[in-house]
Amino acid sequence: MIVDEFMIDYERQKRTGVSEIIYGEGKNVEQIEHIIDDMFQHDQKEIFISRVSQEKANVLKNIFPKFTYNELSKTFYWKEDETLINSGKIVVVCAGTSDLPVAMEAVDIARFLGNDVDLISDVGVAGIHRLFSKLDQIRHANVLVVVAGMEGALASVIGGLVEAPIIAVPTSVGYGANFHGLSALLSMLNSCSNGVSVVNIDNGFGGGYMAHSINSLANKKSGIE
Amino acid sequence: MIVDEFMIDYERQKRTGVSEIIYGEGKNVEQIEHIIDDMFQHDQKEIFISRVSQEKANVLKNIFPKFTYNELSKTFYWKEDETLINSGKIVVVCAGTSDLPVAMEAVDIARFLGNDVDLISDVGVAGIHRLFSKLDQIRHANVLVVVAGMEGALASVIGGLVEAPIIAVPTSVGYGANFHGLSALLSMLNSCSNGVSVVNIDNGFGGGYMAHSINSLANKKSGIE
Amino acid sequence: MIVDEFMIDYERQKRTGVSEIIYGEGKNVEQIEHIIDDMFQHDQKEIFISRVSQEKANVLKNIFPKFTYNELSKTFYWKEDETLINSGKIVVVCAGTSDLPVAMEAVDIARFLGNDVDLISDVGVAGIHRLFSKLDQIRHANVLVVVAGMEGALASVIGGLVEAPIIAVPTSVGYGANFHGLSALLSMLNSCSNGVSVVNIDNGFGGGYMAHSINSLANKKSGIE
Amino acid sequence: MIVDEFMIDYERQKRTGVSEIIYGEGKNVEQIEHIIDDMFQHDQKEIFISRVSQEKANVLKNIFPKFTYNELSKTFYWKEDETLINSGKIVVVCAGTSDLPVAMEAVDIARFLGNDVDLISDVGVAGIHRLFSKLDQIRHANVLVVVAGMEGALASVIGGLVEAPIIAVPTSVGYGANFHGLSALLSMLNSCSNGVSVVNIDNGFGGGYMAHSINSLANKKSGIE
Amino acid sequence: MIVDEFMIDYERQKRTGVSEIIYGEGKNVEQIEHIIDDMFQHDQKEIFISRVSQEKANVLKNIFPKFTYNELSKTFYWKEDETLINSGKIVVVCAGTSDLPVAMEAVDIARFLGNDVDLISDVGVAGIHRLFSKLDQIRHANVLVVVAGMEGALASVIGGLVEAPIIAVPTSVGYGANFHGLSALLSMLNSCSNGVSVVNIDNGFGGGYMAHSINSLANKKSGIE
Amino acid sequence: MIVDEFMIDYERQKRTGVSEIIYGEGKNVEQIEHIIDDMFQHDQKEIFISRVSQEKANVLKNIFPKFTYNELSKTFYWKEDETLINSGKIVVVCAGTSDLPVAMEAVDIARFLGNDVDLISDVGVAGIHRLFSKLDQIRHANVLVVVAGMEGALASVIGGLVEAPIIAVPTSVGYGANFHGLSALLSMLNSCSNGVSVVNIDNGFGGGYMAHSINSLANKKSGIE
Amino acid sequence: MIVDEFMIDYERQKRTGVSEIIYGEGKNVEQIEHIIDDMFQHDQKEIFISRVSQEKANVLKNIFPKFTYNELSKTFYWKEDETLINSGKIVVVCAGTSDLPVAMEAVDIARFLGNDVDLISDVGVAGIHRLFSKLDQIRHANVLVVVAGMEGALASVIGGLVEAPIIAVPTSVGYGANFHGLSALLSMLNSCSNGVSVVNIDNGFGGGYMAHSINSLANKKSGIE
Amino acid sequence: MIVDEFMIDYERQKRTGVSEIIYGEGKNVEQIEHIIDDMFQHDQKEIFISRVSQEKANVLKNIFPKFTYNELSKTFYWKEDETLINSGKIVVVCAGTSDLPVAMEAVDIARFLGNDVDLISDVGVAGIHRLFSKLDQIRHANVLVVVAGMEGALASVIGGLVEAPIIAVPTSVGYGANFHGLSALLSMLNSCSNGVSVVNIDNGFGGGYMAHSINSLANKKSGIE
Repeated sequence: MIVDEFMIDYERQKRTGVSEIIYGEGKNVEQIEHIIDDMFQHDQKEIFISRVSQEKANVLKNIFPKFTYNELSKTFYWKEDETLINSGKIVVVCAGTSDLPVAMEAVDIARFLGNDVDLISDVGVAGIHRLFSKLDQIRHANVLVVVAGMEGALASVIGGLVEAPIIAVPTSVGYGANFHGLSALLSMLNSCSNGVSVVNIDNGFGGGYMAHSINSLANKKSGIE
Repeated sequence: MIVDEFMIDYERQKRTGVSEIIYGEGKNVEQIEHIIDDMFQHDQKEIFISRVSQEKANVLKNIFPKFTYNELSKTFYWKEDETLINSGKIVVVCAGTSDLPVAMEAVDIARFLGNDVDLISDVGVAGIHRLFSKLDQIRHANVLVVVAGMEGALASVIGGLVEAPIIAVPTSVGYGANFHGLSALLSMLNSCSNGVSVVNIDNGFGGGYMAHSINSLANKKSGIE
Repeated sequence: MIVDEFMIDYERQKRTGVSEIIYGEGKNVEQIEHIIDDMFQHDQKEIFISRVSQEKANVLKNIFPKFTYNELSKTFYWKEDETLINSGKIVVVCAGTSDLPVAMEAVDIARFLGNDVDLISDVGVAGIHRLFSKLDQIRHANVLVVVAGMEGALASVIGGLVEAPIIAVPTSVGYGANFHGLSALLSMLNSCSNGVSVVNIDNGFGGGYMAHSINSLANKKSGIE
Repeated sequence: MIVDEFMIDYERQKRTGVSEIIYGEGKNVEQIEHIIDDMFQHDQKEIFISRVSQEKANVLKNIFPKFTYNELSKTFYWKEDETLINSGKIVVVCAGTSDLPVAMEAVDIARFLGNDVDLISDVGVAGIHRLFSKLDQIRHANVLVVVAGMEGALASVIGGLVEAPIIAVPTSVGYGANFHGLSALLSMLNSCSNGVSVVNIDNGFGGGYMAHSINSLANKKSGIE
Repeated sequence: MIVDEFMIDYERQKRTGVSEIIYGEGKNVEQIEHIIDDMFQHDQKEIFISRVSQEKANVLKNIFPKFTYNELSKTFYWKEDETLINSGKIVVVCAGTSDLPVAMEAVDIARFLGNDVDLISDVGVAGIHRLFSKLDQIRHANVLVVVAGMEGALASVIGGLVEAPIIAVPTSVGYGANFHGLSALLSMLNSCSNGVSVVNIDNGFGGGYMAHSINSLANKKSGIE
Repeated sequence: MIVDEFMIDYERQKRTGVSEIIYGEGKNVEQIEHIIDDMFQHDQKEIFISRVSQEKANVLKNIFPKFTYNELSKTFYWKEDETLINSGKIVVVCAGTSDLPVAMEAVDIARFLGNDVDLISDVGVAGIHRLFSKLDQIRHANVLVVVAGMEGALASVIGGLVEAPIIAVPTSVGYGANFHGLSALLSMLNSCSNGVSVVNIDNGFGGGYMAHSINSLANKKSGIE
Repeated sequence: MIVDEFMIDYERQKRTGVSEIIYGEGKNVEQIEHIIDDMFQHDQKEIFISRVSQEKANVLKNIFPKFTYNELSKTFYWKEDETLINSGKIVVVCAGTSDLPVAMEAVDIARFLGNDVDLISDVGVAGIHRLFSKLDQIRHANVLVVVAGMEGALASVIGGLVEAPIIAVPTSVGYGANFHGLSALLSMLNSCSNGVSVVNIDNGFGGGYMAHSINSLANKKSGIE
Repeated sequence: MIVDEFMIDYERQKRTGVSEIIYGEGKNVEQIEHIIDDMFQHDQKEIFISRVSQEKANVLKNIFPKFTYNELSKTFYWKEDETLINSGKIVVVCAGTSDLPVAMEAVDIARFLGNDVDLISDVGVAGIHRLFSKLDQIRHANVLVVVAGMEGALASVIGGLVEAPIIAVPTSVGYGANFHGLSALLSMLNSCSNGVSVVNIDNGFGGGYMAHSINSLANKKSGIE
């Protein structure tokens, strides 16, 4: 029965356009190895596993040497064909260096899904000149993912400067009255800027996925039809 | 000095593509009349005022007979040219009849901004067959706005059925351990479906605006370029 | 004095129909061994100890080889006579694989108390077709235990599809704005479906016990009399 | 479009065994009148509307004189055939007189659904002798609904005394650190007694409905088959 | 005994440099009149009463015509000698027009205590160019009071642009996940900018008083000595 | 400077009747040794150190063999003269065995301060007959300390049965919606019984100290005079 | 059945030493009149009704002219024999004038129960010299009830100055991050002073009752015996 | 790319008067070494790194022997020219010895920025005589930083005794209903004393920095001009 625990949903790509992503947290090396083997046997051409610790990755990298491991975001993935699927930039903007692991998770999944992604880091509002120096790059984006902890003000500031939709990702970076990301989450939900929506605390994956979903739309000719 | 309090930002359309929207809550009839007059004098071709109570609307409708007032959503607006700007549907889906005022606010602003919008109401998960009977219509959307109170489960259920991005709008409908919308908000932020992002509780306006922002992107030829 | 700390209530079966269950968390191997010995000396025919860690179980299994240890749910139990007491199914339904330890605790206690129990796992609302493929089995239940973390939407969806009473068990599976199970708990308490009641976060034991209590009622002839 | 807002689900009885219940809060007299007329035209034999204020009831009672209005619970209902459907008692137990409106809502809906219901009030744990004087009556129940505000201790105390399943209904009765029912809710979720599950704060309706769902099971011969 | 309830502390000016300020909320017209009379009899040269409603002020203004009433901030005050005591500007910066009542309370008390105060309103971060157009004025301040609701991001943005100490005043402006000012409060406490400290939600008075306390220091020659 | 960190307040006994108690948590073995030596040099006749871990106690017991260490409550203490100071019983009542460490801390400090203390454990409300079997002993108390986690109902139940004042000590025993003791804390603060007051979560020390303070009063002849 | 709702517990005095107190909130004039009449018919010699609004009291005072109504605390009571029962002072200390209604409720019930009670008001910690000027009176108390809102610091300050037990009553006085009394409640629960215990927010009645319970103990000869 | 993660902002001193401070938490020894080397190469004359663990400091101290490490506050810093920049005292006042690490962080940063700083510790309100014995020293301060955990009352008490502005720093010292510093935070935000503002829980750095910012102002001749 425990074996059945991991049933890969090989139909998901047909239903939602994206094959199943594996959430690595709480799975051990043997389980992940078992999943990857199973996916290979089903001729999967791309595999993405999020939240794999450095220790597990050290072992898995030996077993599956063609996979890439990102030490910062803890993602472990492989894709046979890395051709871009969507044109138009997704830009991930990150307030501080401590927010980088979350931002990088957004970058990884959005790239894995076939998008052209830029990362702009260390542009927190405490030194707003840094943000303005990147404004051209930010305004060129189809979609923006804004990652920030502490007071999460960056989403509102960027929201007032651009036309593109913004996915705000609060992080748990901070301490004390940050309450594990609550301050950034509430800030972003109460943004005075329009065109900002929010995903869960530290959910870089969710931010990158949503950005891909929007960017895919932009790459269809005049809407759905 | 009090007069200066209401300074319409006539440059906003240039910066973000949308002219200033007036938040009516906390403004009296005289102030709203003053604002509309000022906007007419600046040759504004479209005016949208949210959260205008029935009492205020009764007076204002006499002064500005060409405006439309939606009793359900409490929006008061006028637009010279009602031509659609974006092709492709925005579909607003609403769990229960009590959520309709919030859903209708999303519908109003998205239509006002030039989108073709459908409203599907009363498809809460307690009678999921109602949702499935609307699935074709839902899958035809470019963007979805899902409005639900209580346990807010509708966003997750739809999220597993479609490819389009979803903006989830939690409402404060409910009582007790609903804590004024907290239950729906947390549900939506923790959605197990991908491609779901969230705006503030009861923020139908924010949901509709974000949907417009995404749909506008879909209406540009192959991304930004 | 410390010895008196563990006084088994050998009268409980007479009062409530169920003998005392031992909560293993916070008890060391020596204490559990002492309790089991004491229960054997009192001619107990069934012993159930919840939340025994793998490490403790490794030692205890050597001492008491006829006991069963479930690695997933961490329960350690033995029953002389495994005959079913109640006819009619209890069905435990589980949203994701991470919720399995909690679901399995419900399964274990309900089976231990003499019920016929089915477990259906991995039917989260993000892929609702999986749930519908199991609907016959679900509708055949006398009582349902629905175990889900994150947004906990599964209880509401099933609630709209069946006539049987549902015990909803929120789990702490998730992160960020999940707030250690608060999101699933509030979702389930605010269910828009009727016939749903809720136990504590991660309380698989409580869910299984309540299901047994209800199922026992169904097995009496026409009510109490 | 506003008219469509109230679409009675006339198929619900077939799916879940109970016809649609109308939640009166937020509906005006005209809307309720419209709904009742519509239900009469569809040959409904029983109509239950919860949370109808005294003011609205005064008007509605004139229009529909055969309906009953309960001033305490604010329910407004009519049933052509009042024959009991389930044998076996449901007992609703209520801690203090301030909890009576919630308890009475549980009584009303359970009776409306065809159950034999007793109400025991004013047996809060501050005078536990009152509870013990009713113990025979309590132990004779098939199902118990325990309604309490403030510290909500009554559910745990009864839970240790009976074999029947208990539905605990926390109320918002209290002030200060009661936080609108949070204290009773958390108490009941953390009950040290087994066989207790919980519905939303002030949700007498939910408690009575769940009790009916369980009692119906007890009235089937040996389970479902 | 009730009369003794209001004992003006005529020694406070000696101890803390500022005479007693009267908090008007919860006091009726007769009580306020009684207090002012008492203070006149003790030869007070300045009287400041915060949070006096329009209705009470209408009566009090007739009794004490030399007093000033600010309809926006609800303060009612009189000062014999309006000479500036401190040189150097205090600048109160206000995010949106809804925050003005709180900001104006800060302005009133700071001016009353003898400071030269500027008010800059409507410079929320959603249109950050408005803030930059006022930067010279902001940088010229000895102390800044930054008043903002919703996401409260303004304090952090200004904090990165100036050398002067900033007193951040969160307001309860907003709705939903604003939780009556919690979002702005947490944002400001978690500011990534240095030199920012925070007072209670809607406490314009506290912000203005603290600014005065700091500005007074700046007006002493080289520290205390 | 670090040395000055621990300045024993040798005047406290004169002011409040009790010499300084040392809070051991966060102090290492060397620091505790240093404090005890200092107290010996000041001719202290009694020393009480709370929250000393087993590891630290193993070392300290070798250095100060005449001290007593309670493994359950983690208190480490010595008293030259163990004569009772107050007559009349303090009774500490404890709901479950997991609450014993907190209850024992109350017992230890109350005994150390010269009171005659009884401990009654394992009388949680889930088996209320156990409580009633101890009622004579409970009613004989001058003061009661009631220690309970989970739903904390025990304080209310005892409160309705006795005349003596009750100090309720909530514990963090439990999980999930217990929220680290919040459920028991809120329950006790909202007790429907009179004569119950509450100390901090897990604060056995505070409960025992308060009981001593009350019991001392009972041992003075007719009040203070 | 509604009539039975108010069943006076005429046995309570025998069990707990105090006859039943009536909580007036939520009861109308007719109900209170009915209760008083019933108590007179049972030869009650003392009647205490808390939380009676000014409007209700105006009517009731005409019906029962021998009753006393305290406009500040909203208590309505009568006692045939006003002889003191307990010697020794209870001192109620109150931080600010806004806390007086709560403090006065404590005074009223403690006096009604036969205690000699002093009230000291307006000694908040912002002007601590006021507190010190009353220190002799405070130190002369058998028991102290300390009533404070906002930061609730007064309980800790007094706690370090006296030997008597302190009942701390947090009030909801304040706004913003006071969160309806949460700040004072948490402060008092976390008091660094020993011998402080806490009742519910705004529960002046509970504070006064607990003080009476303790003071009664002090008036027995050497404990219970 | 990881290397770019740490980009020292060498322009910050020009903008805000203070060079960049390094937040050590989450950075390893290699990264800190790399940062210090980079700052030396840019001719920085002062380097301050907060929150460096003892383990990391042991290694870094060998590499950079001229740096100072404070074991209590965990700060690691070096400054070529230690001349005082501001005259006038900053006084850091600390309630209990457990608050010392936070207080010392305030002392370290304020001294590092060129201020003359006194530390007064162990003056919690439970023994208020200790505070009064230091009152002259406290009143001589230009600015006060008041550091306290648990109920955080110290800020209010000092606030009523001095004219200088107070920066209150709540700490997470405590347990249970302290909720990781929430009690002290809310207390300080609700201070009944004027001239108190607050920084984040445990943010000694923020308190010291704000004090420096204010003290710098006091050291300019008569304001800004």
